[in-house]
Amino acid sequence: MTILIIYAHSNKDSLNHAILENVMKGLKEAKRKFELIDLYAEKFDPVLVIDEQHKPRDLIHDPYTEKYRNKIEQANQLIFIYPIWWYGVPAILKGFFDRVFVSGFAYKHHGKFPKGLLKKKSAWVIYTIDSPAFFIRLFRKNVEWIVVRNYILKFCGIKNIKRTRLTSVKHSTYESRQKWLKKIYHLAKAI
Amino acid sequence: MTILIIYAHSNKDSLNHAILENVMKGLKEAKRKFELIDLYAEKFDPVLVIDEQHKPRDLIHDPYTEKYRNKIEQANQLIFIYPIWWYGVPAILKGFFDRVFVSGFAYKHHGKFPKGLLKKKSAWVIYTIDSPAFFIRLFRKNVEWIVVRNYILKFCGIKNIKRTRLTSVKHSTYESRQKWLKKIYHLAKAI
Repeated sequence: MTILIIYAHSNKDSLNHAILENVMKGLKEAKRKFELIDLYAEKFDPVLVIDEQHKPRDLIHDPYTEKYRNKIEQANQLIFIYPIWWYGVPAILKGFFDRVFVSGFAYKHHGKFPKGLLKKKSAWVIYTIDSPAFFIRLFRKNVEWIVVRNYILKFCGIKNIKRTRLTSVKHSTYESRQKWLKKIYHLAKAI
Repeated sequence: MTILIIYAHSNKDSLNHAILENVMKGLKEAKRKFELIDLYAEKFDPVLVIDEQHKPRDLIHDPYTEKYRNKIEQANQLIFIYPIWWYGVPAILKGFFDRVFVSGFAYKHHGKFPKGLLKKKSAWVIYTIDSPAFFIRLFRKNVEWIVVRNYILKFCGIKNIKRTRLTSVKHSTYESRQKWLKKIYHLAKAI
């Protein structure tokens, strides 16, 4: 089993980076093989260009994204780690979906019906959000989760999707963050 | 009254570009003053960096985004034109929200309660989407609209928000596109 981590935060002192470190520590303990795409460190360019020279049908052959398609193809499990901004993923990760999860690779159309092509993969999505859990459920309808889980990952055929959501992050205490990180470490170790 | 158009498509032959042209044609006819932010043409960098040197509280003074904050401040009406990808805005526009619509400029917190700061502005949001209208409503809960209208624009205090949504775009006929563009031209002229 090969695991691919897709990580989207710029700050080495952030909770997101501590999550990444604990996931990798857990995987190493369990002697799991994994690869990391650190979108900020790689300076991934998230801007999808479509024009006369760049047709949608050619995105599947885009040399810029080839290594990412290969890594996803080789992985059995994808682990996403990112913060939520404006009830969506950061632009650098949105562009990763825009540019890499393209037709012919992540899904295709049978007549009018789309078919996911990443069928044999599972996903573990870990994200942080400043809002409290009750607010997200009541007033935001869990929209930040539904879009990623249902309209992107499930659409691409990934069915086994696990979530770890850390809420009220902005006002969290040192103790609660340590508890979260410990839990994530143990989840990674038990993958 | 000053109008600011924020446009997010790379293709000069796209329906989105034809929309932009018709909006500008209508505004010119009506002798309206407007400015254009063409995110692709300006090679806007949508990647928000937060780290030791770039604190969230300093984003309001970021020199890279200063001209955009100024343009928004001076505008009475914002017009957004973009395609929907993965039930969200393109990465280049997501990053515009991430980097420009920052705390202290677009909103601020009074204790626990956020307050929108773009109160005297209105917005006209024009977007294209490949899915059919009934599918978006029934199976996607209008999520691509609710996030932009409620969780971004309204959150920032913009209350007068108009939408023009073009659906089933991928399989649209030349005639229906001409009809859409004519309608948009007349709406722009009547602003």
